[in-house]
Amino acid sequence: MHGYTQDKDAYLKRLRRVEGQVRGIAKMIDDDKYCIDVLTQVSAATKALEAVALGLLDEHLRHCVVQAAAEGGQISDQKLTEASAAIARLVKS
Amino acid sequence: MHGYTQDKDAYLKRLRRVEGQVRGIAKMIDDDKYCIDVLTQVSAATKALEAVALGLLDEHLRHCVVQAAAEGGQISDQKLTEASAAIARLVKS
Amino acid sequence: MHGYTQDKDAYLKRLRRVEGQVRGIAKMIDDDKYCIDVLTQVSAATKALEAVALGLLDEHLRHCVVQAAAEGGQISDQKLTEASAAIARLVKS
Amino acid sequence: MHGYTQDKDAYLKRLRRVEGQVRGIAKMIDDDKYCIDVLTQVSAATKALEAVALGLLDEHLRHCVVQAAAEGGQISDQKLTEASAAIARLVKS
Repeated sequence: MHGYTQDKDAYLKRLRRVEGQVRGIAKMIDDDKYCIDVLTQVSAATKALEAVALGLLDEHLRHCVVQAAAEGGQISDQKLTEASAAIARLVKS
Repeated sequence: MHGYTQDKDAYLKRLRRVEGQVRGIAKMIDDDKYCIDVLTQVSAATKALEAVALGLLDEHLRHCVVQAAAEGGQISDQKLTEASAAIARLVKS
Repeated sequence: MHGYTQDKDAYLKRLRRVEGQVRGIAKMIDDDKYCIDVLTQVSAATKALEAVALGLLDEHLRHCVVQAAAEGGQISDQKLTEASAAIARLVKS
Repeated sequence: MHGYTQDKDAYLKRLRRVEGQVRGIAKMIDDDKYCIDVLTQVSAATKALEAVALGLLDEHLRHCVVQAAAEGGQISDQKLTEASAAIARLVKS
């Protein structure tokens, strides 16, 4: 059981949509579409991926981190270090 | 002919790889993988998309914008407004 | 008492440095320095602010959120909604 | 003469405002304000710096890059490599 388990279908649906967006971008390039229009779609796919990441992170904090916090000690510390590192990667990506 | 035309195959290959990454993320969720590991892959896919965008933008500036600049006048102005808007979308996405 | 209280002096020092960076950028513009060099300094100041934000967030999760999680219930929920919103603002800024 | 020269006063004013924002963030920390409220101000200052960067970049493209493009050859190439590197730094910061 993970934070995202209860929303699994919704995440799978969103990711299939992102997959379709990326395939669409490849098709635009294959069809010689105008660069700026391709870039607009790349920004949209990036934003969609970011939204997925923010959703997963929110559920991770709500479930795994809160549970680890309840247990306390070293596990709690590790989970928080791990979560902060994931947030930093997101902010920088 | 667009800025990216001569590198078309390389872009298509990179986008197929991103498509595979997104499909892999969906599979991780379907297989109940650990949230933080899923997030790491989402950050990697986001970075890969951003790299594609920076490449497309560089070639757009080098070809379309430079050509428009040579023609001058209103077209050049429009192309620069358009390029700046695309850069702003990228920075914000 | 907040998450950052014990590192207060370090944060104040880092923010004074960012303040100096921003003042330095203004001076570069006043001295007509080359645009790209100004932009490099703006990126550096932005990165420094982001690092401050990631530090504050990490301590917030470690203290306020963990404490709220221990108390549980509605307070815990509110704190997590608030933390996720702050993370989303950071990712988008 | 740079791209930003004619808007110099406006940029100096915006940067003084960012400087004030950063000083305000330090004061909030010194006054033990709530972490999330501090983070909101850090995001606002980051966004303000990003807006300055996008403005400077737009003017740089419009003036320096267009002029280099008119001259053509190696100088034009160098300016575009430089501009693309600055855009990449912005996107990653």
